[in-house]
Amino acid sequence: MPPETKTPEERLAQAGLVLPPPPVPLGAYEPWVISGSLLMTSGQFSWVDGKLAYLGRIGGEVPAAQAYDACRIAALNAIAQLKSAVGSLSRINRILRVEGTMQVAPGFRDHPVALNGASDLINMVFAEKGRHSRMIYTNPEMPLNAPVLIVLMAEIAV
Amino acid sequence: MPPETKTPEERLAQAGLVLPPPPVPLGAYEPWVISGSLLMTSGQFSWVDGKLAYLGRIGGEVPAAQAYDACRIAALNAIAQLKSAVGSLSRINRILRVEGTMQVAPGFRDHPVALNGASDLINMVFAEKGRHSRMIYTNPEMPLNAPVLIVLMAEIAV
Amino acid sequence: MPPETKTPEERLAQAGLVLPPPPVPLGAYEPWVISGSLLMTSGQFSWVDGKLAYLGRIGGEVPAAQAYDACRIAALNAIAQLKSAVGSLSRINRILRVEGTMQVAPGFRDHPVALNGASDLINMVFAEKGRHSRMIYTNPEMPLNAPVLIVLMAEIAV
Repeated sequence: MPPETKTPEERLAQAGLVLPPPPVPLGAYEPWVISGSLLMTSGQFSWVDGKLAYLGRIGGEVPAAQAYDACRIAALNAIAQLKSAVGSLSRINRILRVEGTMQVAPGFRDHPVALNGASDLINMVFAEKGRHSRMIYTNPEMPLNAPVLIVLMAEIAV
Repeated sequence: MPPETKTPEERLAQAGLVLPPPPVPLGAYEPWVISGSLLMTSGQFSWVDGKLAYLGRIGGEVPAAQAYDACRIAALNAIAQLKSAVGSLSRINRILRVEGTMQVAPGFRDHPVALNGASDLINMVFAEKGRHSRMIYTNPEMPLNAPVLIVLMAEIAV
Repeated sequence: MPPETKTPEERLAQAGLVLPPPPVPLGAYEPWVISGSLLMTSGQFSWVDGKLAYLGRIGGEVPAAQAYDACRIAALNAIAQLKSAVGSLSRINRILRVEGTMQVAPGFRDHPVALNGASDLINMVFAEKGRHSRMIYTNPEMPLNAPVLIVLMAEIAV
């Protein structure tokens, strides 16, 4: 079977990845909304089994190599929200946007490589439909002392 | 009359809240735009009678309890922009997104509770139609030394 | 010929401006995406002939007057992405949003004037169709030590 006929769920399984349960919001908001064909998530943390996989500043307590992994895990949580929203990831027509907001140590500027942790995962799971635009923000103090939050916007079949 | 039949304007009045005049932009831009069914505001400050209700950093000059109020007031200004855009708030089908950008003091991490000042107001005014996604950004230096800017995105009836 | 009948390309030429080649992304993402009538760019730097026109912090190494120019040049690169996406800028029905993310020195708060460098250009090139909403973010450490990144969202004819 050629790769392009696999589903996103099959590609996740093939990579040995299991979607976590979609995380509960930290406040009086929803984890995602749908408007017409537009699906967008709230900011997603790097949860693993109910704990943040990493804490602190990228380029500080969280070195660059782990920052890639932190972004990857946060994107996995965001994909879990997409699946929670649409049931089957095959309903995702296109990942429109990846926004990565990072808590960084002074002088750290290697954000684009770190955020590839999210982009590479999205590209692997959704193949051509994963080709996304992207924006990086750096923030001085993030909720829960998290190194990164990932937001996904997607076009869905309606 | 059961609560769900009230209009957003009636819920505001019932809570003793009066929408401020929609604030004028600080530069060469518009306070909101509409594209199809999508309405989005520019960043909105916590104006009260032409002055910012709070100045400074959340967790610093602006303690956490006041930060909740600053977010609430900025959201009230953002709702005033929505009404300016659509005339009647009953034309809002759904509040899609609340973005809260905060100027914070070092070590302050209780942003999600502060931003509930905006989320709780939105949920009260729009009831089921107010259930929104959300993102928090923290910024080192904000225009006017403002503690918070709120952006709203909404789906409108067209 | 009255001004309103000029094309965006003609207005650029009249102002002596030449669109740069659309910049290549810094990571595993696309420079823009289209979903229905919505076109959005990834964050765009102030490239001139393959180099960043300015480096450093606004209000520090990059004084306020140059920050206006940095925002203007980044917006020019973003317009180059729009043209790359739609071929003719006359297919842009409306510029919906300008997002300016700035790397600022402590105490710098004159962001709205600086971001007018982007807004004034957009308003000149797209005339009535350029009337946009706007949001400013300030970030402590930006990729490439860039003073500003500009994101554009536009409604296109489909």
